[in-house]
Amino acid sequence: MKTKILFILFIALSLTVTAQLNSRREIKIPDIPGYLTLKCDLHMHTVFSDGLVWPTVRVEEAWREGLDVIAISDHIEYHPFQEDIPVKFGRSFEIAKPRAEIYGLIIIRAAEITRQMPPGHFNCLFLEDVAALDQPDFWDAIHEAKNQGAFIMWNHPGWRQENEIPIWYDDHTKLYDQGLMNGMEVINGRSYYPLALEWCVEKNITIIGNTDVHSPIGMDYDLSLNDQRPITLVFTTDRTEDAVKEALFNGRTVVYSDDMLIGKEEFLKPLFNHSIELVNDDSDFSSGGTYNIQIKNNSEVPFYLISTDQPEGLEYPEVITLYPERIVMMPLRISRNAANDMNGIKLPFVVKNLLTNKDTGLQVEIVIKGAVKK
Amino acid sequence: MKTKILFILFIALSLTVTAQLNSRREIKIPDIPGYLTLKCDLHMHTVFSDGLVWPTVRVEEAWREGLDVIAISDHIEYHPFQEDIPVKFGRSFEIAKPRAEIYGLIIIRAAEITRQMPPGHFNCLFLEDVAALDQPDFWDAIHEAKNQGAFIMWNHPGWRQENEIPIWYDDHTKLYDQGLMNGMEVINGRSYYPLALEWCVEKNITIIGNTDVHSPIGMDYDLSLNDQRPITLVFTTDRTEDAVKEALFNGRTVVYSDDMLIGKEEFLKPLFNHSIELVNDDSDFSSGGTYNIQIKNNSEVPFYLISTDQPEGLEYPEVITLYPERIVMMPLRISRNAANDMNGIKLPFVVKNLLTNKDTGLQVEIVIKGAVKK
Amino acid sequence: MKTKILFILFIALSLTVTAQLNSRREIKIPDIPGYLTLKCDLHMHTVFSDGLVWPTVRVEEAWREGLDVIAISDHIEYHPFQEDIPVKFGRSFEIAKPRAEIYGLIIIRAAEITRQMPPGHFNCLFLEDVAALDQPDFWDAIHEAKNQGAFIMWNHPGWRQENEIPIWYDDHTKLYDQGLMNGMEVINGRSYYPLALEWCVEKNITIIGNTDVHSPIGMDYDLSLNDQRPITLVFTTDRTEDAVKEALFNGRTVVYSDDMLIGKEEFLKPLFNHSIELVNDDSDFSSGGTYNIQIKNNSEVPFYLISTDQPEGLEYPEVITLYPERIVMMPLRISRNAANDMNGIKLPFVVKNLLTNKDTGLQVEIVIKGAVKK
Amino acid sequence: MKTKILFILFIALSLTVTAQLNSRREIKIPDIPGYLTLKCDLHMHTVFSDGLVWPTVRVEEAWREGLDVIAISDHIEYHPFQEDIPVKFGRSFEIAKPRAEIYGLIIIRAAEITRQMPPGHFNCLFLEDVAALDQPDFWDAIHEAKNQGAFIMWNHPGWRQENEIPIWYDDHTKLYDQGLMNGMEVINGRSYYPLALEWCVEKNITIIGNTDVHSPIGMDYDLSLNDQRPITLVFTTDRTEDAVKEALFNGRTVVYSDDMLIGKEEFLKPLFNHSIELVNDDSDFSSGGTYNIQIKNNSEVPFYLISTDQPEGLEYPEVITLYPERIVMMPLRISRNAANDMNGIKLPFVVKNLLTNKDTGLQVEIVIKGAVKK
Repeated sequence: MKTKILFILFIALSLTVTAQLNSRREIKIPDIPGYLTLKCDLHMHTVFSDGLVWPTVRVEEAWREGLDVIAISDHIEYHPFQEDIPVKFGRSFEIAKPRAEIYGLIIIRAAEITRQMPPGHFNCLFLEDVAALDQPDFWDAIHEAKNQGAFIMWNHPGWRQENEIPIWYDDHTKLYDQGLMNGMEVINGRSYYPLALEWCVEKNITIIGNTDVHSPIGMDYDLSLNDQRPITLVFTTDRTEDAVKEALFNGRTVVYSDDMLIGKEEFLKPLFNHSIELVNDDSDFSSGGTYNIQIKNNSEVPFYLISTDQPEGLEYPEVITLYPERIVMMPLRISRNAANDMNGIKLPFVVKNLLTNKDTGLQVEIVIKGAVKK
Repeated sequence: MKTKILFILFIALSLTVTAQLNSRREIKIPDIPGYLTLKCDLHMHTVFSDGLVWPTVRVEEAWREGLDVIAISDHIEYHPFQEDIPVKFGRSFEIAKPRAEIYGLIIIRAAEITRQMPPGHFNCLFLEDVAALDQPDFWDAIHEAKNQGAFIMWNHPGWRQENEIPIWYDDHTKLYDQGLMNGMEVINGRSYYPLALEWCVEKNITIIGNTDVHSPIGMDYDLSLNDQRPITLVFTTDRTEDAVKEALFNGRTVVYSDDMLIGKEEFLKPLFNHSIELVNDDSDFSSGGTYNIQIKNNSEVPFYLISTDQPEGLEYPEVITLYPERIVMMPLRISRNAANDMNGIKLPFVVKNLLTNKDTGLQVEIVIKGAVKK
Repeated sequence: MKTKILFILFIALSLTVTAQLNSRREIKIPDIPGYLTLKCDLHMHTVFSDGLVWPTVRVEEAWREGLDVIAISDHIEYHPFQEDIPVKFGRSFEIAKPRAEIYGLIIIRAAEITRQMPPGHFNCLFLEDVAALDQPDFWDAIHEAKNQGAFIMWNHPGWRQENEIPIWYDDHTKLYDQGLMNGMEVINGRSYYPLALEWCVEKNITIIGNTDVHSPIGMDYDLSLNDQRPITLVFTTDRTEDAVKEALFNGRTVVYSDDMLIGKEEFLKPLFNHSIELVNDDSDFSSGGTYNIQIKNNSEVPFYLISTDQPEGLEYPEVITLYPERIVMMPLRISRNAANDMNGIKLPFVVKNLLTNKDTGLQVEIVIKGAVKK
Repeated sequence: MKTKILFILFIALSLTVTAQLNSRREIKIPDIPGYLTLKCDLHMHTVFSDGLVWPTVRVEEAWREGLDVIAISDHIEYHPFQEDIPVKFGRSFEIAKPRAEIYGLIIIRAAEITRQMPPGHFNCLFLEDVAALDQPDFWDAIHEAKNQGAFIMWNHPGWRQENEIPIWYDDHTKLYDQGLMNGMEVINGRSYYPLALEWCVEKNITIIGNTDVHSPIGMDYDLSLNDQRPITLVFTTDRTEDAVKEALFNGRTVVYSDDMLIGKEEFLKPLFNHSIELVNDDSDFSSGGTYNIQIKNNSEVPFYLISTDQPEGLEYPEVITLYPERIVMMPLRISRNAANDMNGIKLPFVVKNLLTNKDTGLQVEIVIKGAVKK
């Protein structure tokens, strides 16, 4: 048997696991033309309401997981630990803020107005004075938030409804009509509300996805398994709180949850196009034949493609999955006639896990200049 | 291309990840003759001193990771969050206790007396009245603990010493002589104190290993990588708090940290012997030859064996690793003469990662009845 | 910062990865009363037909993955590499056999009769003379196999059929009637043939699952992800080739593929019952209340339970997954009346991934003696 | 309990594991200015000598693992399988070549001259006629290779030597003097030859690292654990066989094995510099204070940094590990005076796992423009 490599770095190695845990992995989703893609979780709790961690933990978790923006939104009305922790509105923000500055994260002052359904729970972001929301009457509270310029979102709209299917009550019409429902969670933790997605599309409400995490995040999401916490991708003009606010009010979001991206075509399409890359698309294919196209997905999101109408003279698989950070090979047969006619080859697909609406996959084209001839 | 298995269990699968996180994995280390092997972490913190989680989190973490016994040992003298959480001695135990009952865990009422070095920090277990330890004078506090019948251990003895090498001060002699140093941490978190181990062996002090965890456990240990938190194996006559106390006072412990087990030979040897199993040791080897012995390690601890003196007439590898929950094959050459002389084959090894003292591996014998002839 | 544990085992560690790869993991599925549960893959190829590995590789792969029995079944009629490797029937068995003896595996002399559909491909196991199957006429070949006492199975019955749905041709009736179809693959690689399963149940044909592997196994199954290759569990009276043969002819098999077990109730039920264990079922529950039952699954197969009729006076979750090698907690509410009436609590479930027939889950009862009172 | 996300993509998911295995992951090591960084394994075997796989397997393995260039170098003199596979020199190349074209890999016609030590084994790359190397006399064979323009490397120079320490025999002087030793393996499989590295540096021999793989690659390297096979990074002007040949003859290589990179400073330094990136180095630090620098390592190689002389007025950790594809935070204290004097901050480190010679780490500087003020 051969002798083996001796590890030369014993001491460094012994420090490895702990230290590596304390590092940041980036979420591999690209920026899009004109915008930064900020990764945001806008709904989380601490021991200052019914969460189970100290506020600084939320910052450290977020930094490690590649987030750019968080909002701690402790309940206004619910304080199960008040026997031990006297109620102080906005205190979790104050404690977490200096830590966020060290880590370079944006933290938004927020709170959750927490009422029986209807109208349910509402996160108010960008507050100036959290305590002022502590009002007996729901409408007083929500108007106070509005007066402070808050972005207001309806949280987990299916909560406490049968089969978690949300119901649109009169209160919600009133909120919407008065500009008090700026966003809506279509994803909350492991729950997905397709009907809420339809409402967002129909009424132009900003699409949001959050964790609503109460436990240490690692107790709810298996970080080792790429069990991504749900987040909202916010498309901003710069890395500031003001830019996040502007983008939210203007509906520039996509929700990322499990392996789904949910949002408007105008954002999903550039996310897809800036994620994929053709490795070998520059060959001569004028005489037709069979080519092997290598397609690279630079993002961490898989893309499940289903071919729609295969153009005449072309033959290729009906189902292709572009695995995250992988290159896959797609055989492509081009007839001689088709080759003669072409100015570039366009393969239409639907991406089943990029949703523009309930059950509606994004339509894309993969455009090939050429290919390695078999 | 063939059609594929359709998943028939969509709904169940969608619940999988979250639910699986909320399950318990057992620590695969066997009981030994006469005793249960209880898995214990006897040093941890919550927001009631300088920890970062609510007390119930410590119970849930412990249950998931296969522990049987925990002690939350919030500091008596250190309360950085008291502006928000007024000091209540023993409160973390009170909050955690009902949860421990649901999960079937033993939780021990404890506290950490926290002084400058010397004498340093001391965990007091099995207290009746935590608040009574809040004394200006160290000796008053520690005597109070003793009066309550506490098991007292010196925590992280190298803390704040140069290169973390512990120093035995006069205070420690005094504590030891008065029966106030019943245990000592030879492992605290990622720190190992070999000198403390020597002291424990020399002075018959109970050997202890703990996490001293402040963060959510998953921020310090990568549970997915089998990055085991350090624990103390306590050998008890039954699964009760009293039995744990009796075992601790009588020194029946082994520390499990990384891939090391540290303790007395009388406990390490049965742990080893009850972990391994020979798969095929019943063949006829009377005529000598080359055999392939399959050795199974049923435990989750790897065993790094170094052969010491190879008995005459036998030839086998000098280094063998028995991987956790794996079977390895060991070639064994037996000369004809050796085969004639034998009443069973005994292969002596040192297990380098089972330590009876600083740098001292456990001596074991692998006893083979026979083997599959090649 | 504290000093850290120095790794004391540099040399041993440097050998670790290679050596660990060369170890055996056991498949954690229990024996059942009266029988050993042997893990068998009875369909695989080498360079002696159209496989891509040397025959000894099949033995090493099988040993590492915990198999007990293999059959290399190179094609009689198909030899794409014959320009480089002259045809020698049975040669792959001869080469692999000595290696199997070293590793303690049972290897069965076999071949695959390979014809267009109908009748398709048939594995013949326990042959004496492989070359004698090289006959121009299919029926001559299959009768020769029968004359040698072979166990004959229809491979991948949906192969080359539309949507891979198998068709039962006249040839198959003839084979079946003449006792020439002793087994049938309901699983071949990643393909599942539910209709074949129905036929096996209806006609009492032995249910089989195999890989049909051509590549190195690690190119088709991601061993690191617990991406189990499909195997046949054969219930034998001892660990011999004769016992395997007897069990196959008598239909004592269960197929294990992905997270499914497929077979007769008489084998699935004891597999389930010997896999699970109630951790705390001995409490007094005579006064009713809410209990937390901890259920342990000692096997590597998850069990997806759906509760059928909840007995009156009992309340517990409708869906429970018993994760592999994990303990899960099931809350159980018992009414006072129910408690009075009971002699033990029986909870009926269907296990959705243990199939006795197409779409038919196994019915089981979880029997509880008592429980930890909340 | 909330309802859960239903997987919408059952069919696609059922195809996932197999298909994902059949995809290519890129090796994340950057190009350097002026050169492409091609990933090459130049020493591997098939069933045409003593390897255990069909030649096409070597291509598929290499494509999946992100290699760009391979050489199958079956032995000229050793054919243990010739009873079954008649000797055909160069046949493995012929079989593998069309597959390499489909996958877009460069495959080099090669062979291994295989003699007792001295002189040992020599890989000859870029051959025109492999059979012509089948000569009784070693020197005839090696001169024939030279006449064909081959790049000749000494394989595993410590092979069959005591403790695997290589010996430089007269034959090696003769080979070197005649231009017949163009490269040398400093890494072969899991073996590292530090003395060979010294010779390469001293005599300007091209540094090479290869697997010398005989088994399916997944049996020797645990691909799931990032257990990278050893490769040679070749710095070429384009992606052609000629460019690889030119680069090898001109010594433009770095060996990548485990977490080590071994080569000349002129290649290691740009590899390091193009791998790291400072996330936040643009702040004003003119008044001094404590800053938190976030350093990103875009490569898949960890960098173990040890600080050498800390410049006056600066304070930062002595040991930093830049984990692969992670961001780590480095606290940096700058005194007011130091801040005034500076035109940019340069932090000198040695990278312990980037070796320019035996035991000699690469010296680097991390240059900081600014930092986020704490």
